Amino acid sequence: MTYKIVFLRHGQSAWNLENRFTGWTDVGLTEQGEAEARQAGDLMKAEGLNFDEAHTSLLSRAIKTLWLALENMTLMWLPVFKTWRLNERHYGALQGYNKAEMAAQVGEAQVKLWRRSYDVPPPALEDGDSRLPGSDRRYASLSPEELPRTECLKDTVARVLPYWNDVLVPAVRAGKSLLVVAHGNSLRALVKHLDGISDQDIISLNIPTGVPLVYELDSSMRPISHRYLGDPEQVAAAAAAVANQGKAR
Amino acid sequence: MTYKIVFLRHGQSAWNLENRFTGWTDVGLTEQGEAEARQAGDLMKAEGLNFDEAHTSLLSRAIKTLWLALENMTLMWLPVFKTWRLNERHYGALQGYNKAEMAAQVGEAQVKLWRRSYDVPPPALEDGDSRLPGSDRRYASLSPEELPRTECLKDTVARVLPYWNDVLVPAVRAGKSLLVVAHGNSLRALVKHLDGISDQDIISLNIPTGVPLVYELDSSMRPISHRYLGDPEQVAAAAAAVANQGKAR
Repeated sequence: MTYKIVFLRHGQSAWNLENRFTGWTDVGLTEQGEAEARQAGDLMKAEGLNFDEAHTSLLSRAIKTLWLALENMTLMWLPVFKTWRLNERHYGALQGYNKAEMAAQVGEAQVKLWRRSYDVPPPALEDGDSRLPGSDRRYASLSPEELPRTECLKDTVARVLPYWNDVLVPAVRAGKSLLVVAHGNSLRALVKHLDGISDQDIISLNIPTGVPLVYELDSSMRPISHRYLGDPEQVAAAAAAVANQGKAR
Repeated sequence: MTYKIVFLRHGQSAWNLENRFTGWTDVGLTEQGEAEARQAGDLMKAEGLNFDEAHTSLLSRAIKTLWLALENMTLMWLPVFKTWRLNERHYGALQGYNKAEMAAQVGEAQVKLWRRSYDVPPPALEDGDSRLPGSDRRYASLSPEELPRTECLKDTVARVLPYWNDVLVPAVRAGKSLLVVAHGNSLRALVKHLDGISDQDIISLNIPTGVPLVYELDSSMRPISHRYLGDPEQVAAAAAAVANQGKAR
């Protein structure tokens, strides 16, 4: 018995385009991002993927990506579950700043450390900062301890994994076919766990926007295989583009 | 203590425009229907309505209306629950036929009877008809007894009310503010129940597309007041347009 689960990173957002640290900032998709989302839906439909449930974050760019993909799959009726645990990594006080400008200011090495190191969080948001998520109604049910002020990837892994273990795995085991639409770092957290990637090697792993990533799992939820749908060259170019965002130009 | 719940009929669909009996046929919105949905979102936002949950049917025209309204309210993160119990009335063997042509064929009185009588269902779908909902994956969890082959409004009331009593009322009592996006007849079923409208009087009650309908309820879930948001003349014209659909022209 094998299982299948599909991951999808949201299409290009306004701040992907502007090369700014986004984190929990709720920016929308660009036109290109919307086109990527629709194309992802077309790819999954052409692949004959049939889903029973979809899961996504509380951030509009992931939700909109899911909606557009579902619309092109004629699966708008699918049950959709939204959770803060699939949100992008919280980028703390960096949220809103341009990545290249920040690299010119503090050095590429520091920016790469913040972006890609496993356990070094960016500077935290301080009391009174309007970017604190506590004032946002969608997070009203979270305890103060759960609400992040910044996160390193290790922190993101820690809050994504309970959703994997308590919600997604039981659904997969119950025979449900799942589509998970999330973010660069919440998906890196899941992939790190699934493939047993080391804290070191996860640094250079990049997930392209808008490309469905199909995992086949065995009965112990260990990956048998994974592959991106679509044109391999296009996928590689998209992943490289993500890797280059932190460079000063 | 008073409660508030908002009902919204989906915007104009392709078959509203073509004046065809739609029922459970999964047709999309027209451009005008999408505009109505966005405008409904703007009206609810301007009114300062803040929702905790949204409920809708399994039909794309209601789901899309909800999505567009949520997007304009910046409430895309809202939990959304989809249920067949909020689906449009099943129109049986009439589904797909033009209302005016049918009126020319069998008489306006017969069409009005099918459209608006409380307990006379249209002819039922027969075995082997491709329009039977049983072949549709979204209804896979329903028992054969639950799956309709036709419905009069009385039948629609009978399958909408369990959702009202078991899901919506407990949520309202728990202090949640709900948005319910559904269809002409599933909303007439709810309104009939809420306002205690007679089987006779419900015939002439029409609900316009894309106009938020705000009910204020007392602690016994009895309506204290209800009103449509937006320009009263526009609302009246929209309701009259619905009433006239069954006329031969």
